[in-house]
Amino acid sequence: MKLTCTQSDLNSNLSLVSRAVPSRPTHPVLANVLLIADAENQCLELTGFDLSLGIRSNFPAVVETGGSFTLPAKLFNDIVSRLPDGNITIDDDEGEAIATLTSTSGRYEVRGMGGEEYPELPKVEEGEVIYLPPEALINGLKGTLFATSPDETKQVLTGVHLKVQKDGLEFAATDGHRLAIVKTESVAPDGESEVEEIEEFEVTIPAKALREIERMIGMDQSSEAVALRFDEGQVIFELGEQCLTSRKLDGQYPAYGQLLPDKFTNQINVDRKQFLGAVERIAVLADQKNNILKCSIDSVNQEISLSVDAQDVGSGRESMAAQISSDEPEEIAFNVKYLIEGLKAIPSASEISIQLNTATSPVVLNPLGGVKMTYLIMPVQLRN
Amino acid sequence: MKLTCTQSDLNSNLSLVSRAVPSRPTHPVLANVLLIADAENQCLELTGFDLSLGIRSNFPAVVETGGSFTLPAKLFNDIVSRLPDGNITIDDDEGEAIATLTSTSGRYEVRGMGGEEYPELPKVEEGEVIYLPPEALINGLKGTLFATSPDETKQVLTGVHLKVQKDGLEFAATDGHRLAIVKTESVAPDGESEVEEIEEFEVTIPAKALREIERMIGMDQSSEAVALRFDEGQVIFELGEQCLTSRKLDGQYPAYGQLLPDKFTNQINVDRKQFLGAVERIAVLADQKNNILKCSIDSVNQEISLSVDAQDVGSGRESMAAQISSDEPEEIAFNVKYLIEGLKAIPSASEISIQLNTATSPVVLNPLGGVKMTYLIMPVQLRN
Repeated sequence: MKLTCTQSDLNSNLSLVSRAVPSRPTHPVLANVLLIADAENQCLELTGFDLSLGIRSNFPAVVETGGSFTLPAKLFNDIVSRLPDGNITIDDDEGEAIATLTSTSGRYEVRGMGGEEYPELPKVEEGEVIYLPPEALINGLKGTLFATSPDETKQVLTGVHLKVQKDGLEFAATDGHRLAIVKTESVAPDGESEVEEIEEFEVTIPAKALREIERMIGMDQSSEAVALRFDEGQVIFELGEQCLTSRKLDGQYPAYGQLLPDKFTNQINVDRKQFLGAVERIAVLADQKNNILKCSIDSVNQEISLSVDAQDVGSGRESMAAQISSDEPEEIAFNVKYLIEGLKAIPSASEISIQLNTATSPVVLNPLGGVKMTYLIMPVQLRN
Repeated sequence: MKLTCTQSDLNSNLSLVSRAVPSRPTHPVLANVLLIADAENQCLELTGFDLSLGIRSNFPAVVETGGSFTLPAKLFNDIVSRLPDGNITIDDDEGEAIATLTSTSGRYEVRGMGGEEYPELPKVEEGEVIYLPPEALINGLKGTLFATSPDETKQVLTGVHLKVQKDGLEFAATDGHRLAIVKTESVAPDGESEVEEIEEFEVTIPAKALREIERMIGMDQSSEAVALRFDEGQVIFELGEQCLTSRKLDGQYPAYGQLLPDKFTNQINVDRKQFLGAVERIAVLADQKNNILKCSIDSVNQEISLSVDAQDVGSGRESMAAQISSDEPEEIAFNVKYLIEGLKAIPSASEISIQLNTATSPVVLNPLGGVKMTYLIMPVQLRN
């Protein structure tokens, strides 16, 4: 393998695929990135893989001799990121376990391993494929990822559940305490499959992989549709010259639709930023005690008040105007953390609606306009 | 005590003085900031103090009733920083251990302690005073602070040694492995003492206090001289409406002047950025082994080469043009960490000189032009 590419191409693609390299690899070669020099297409392909999440990226290179090799991801990254602008030549000296990096400033020899020792990235050859508009994907992820469970024992709850339906996409995430749902515009048809029927399906994808997809779309300048392929065990996202593979999360995702009440007896419309600001200030004191905030609903004065009483530390109270159509309850309590996270994730909308029935039944937040998001939280029951 | 001030004034001054509040206070009241409302001068004074370092700041406020009170620094800070723009009223309800904060958005009650429980900040009434131009102070600190020892048992080595001389200021710091010295322009005379003789003196000031001074000067827009007062045990810096007090470090500072060789048999002039870039790349591999970098001096080709050989990992070599007047040695070795820190701290100059005698005697780096800085490092002795 012998090739020449630019420092900036190598650096950006290397830092991208390195995000899939595990910090504690189960096998030494997984601490490396795989380099495949393709003489026919004159490009270099880099791969990072932790056996669950894989990232692959392709970019132009002048390939003199094709071949493959692996190099320690961190060391390779650390050297390349510090090299000056200009061309870098990589040569694995055929059969030696050493690659030579030559740049305008100097020459480095780095010990690696043969490409044949690196595991194959999973392929999906006979699965479904669907094309997702990047903006819909971003909105769906921003509105749900935060509500996934960080607890690895929680299985499907560590991922986002994606439903592809005829009339659009539905993203959902819940950690058992709150539930976030985003519905986005219809699935983008592929150029060639415009007339084909869209197959309905559901899949649960690990949050870790989706956070990387969110980053990759954020860095990508194009607005090209993202292809999502999947079969029994794997999903693959394709974005231009980059792809990300991930195992699917097995198991039945909770039937979250049943949790949403059919109707509500109370509705409060309030300015999102003003409400969030007040909750964040109240949270400073709530944090000193049990993280619980009380919300009083005054339909006569069309005003809501947030309050906290942290004995021995202090207390606080904020009030703001709201449009209230309500009879009861007059008081309801929340965990500030769940409220803050939901209010931050509700995108763009300046106003939100808070709908509820009793002080002990699910509360639903929706933005008024903008992205179609639903955020459900359970109130905290107060003992008197 | 009852007063009204703006959120932005309170917020910026509070975060400044909070930097002196200890995270693990030896006495409960030290976790608080002291507020003194001065009705006569219509201002609010805030103080944070850990018994060694103290920061005090003064700003305009509408004071209805003068008095003093203390509030928990972190909680107070967290609430104030989240309050909206506009006025904040603080009222300690005379005798109650609670202060009420009222802003446009809400009302908070925070438990505090009386001002009389807060220790007095040290005063220097009959000591020396000297006026330092802020730019000279900044240059001196940037060029030396990094070379102080972080090891609290190292006493005077945890501080910067400041010599005030007739012809200027000298800053010095050493941790026993390297030594940094900066000489700056002459001491700024005070408006009133222009004709007075400048008293020569020396003082060692804890790095922690000087890092705060560096920050305070950085945030200050004015170019007013900084007053430095000191007596037997304390130093006080005065910057406009702010002041910082610190204990001095006791003990004899090493006679570092003796460490600097009188003359050198070898001199190498090299581009600072190019040299630093190469050292940082070589450091990636040196970091895998013993942090040692070899430097070969080729006076025939007027070139220096940096190299590292980390067995089992890899090796690297960088060469660059240099102006060399040298016979011997041909090879010298350094700890990359000390080299990188020194090269980063040498300010503004595009070229540096490296002066040395043998491969085992002190090496001195100087910028060619700009700030007068001297950086001395001991080479590493290589066993063959």
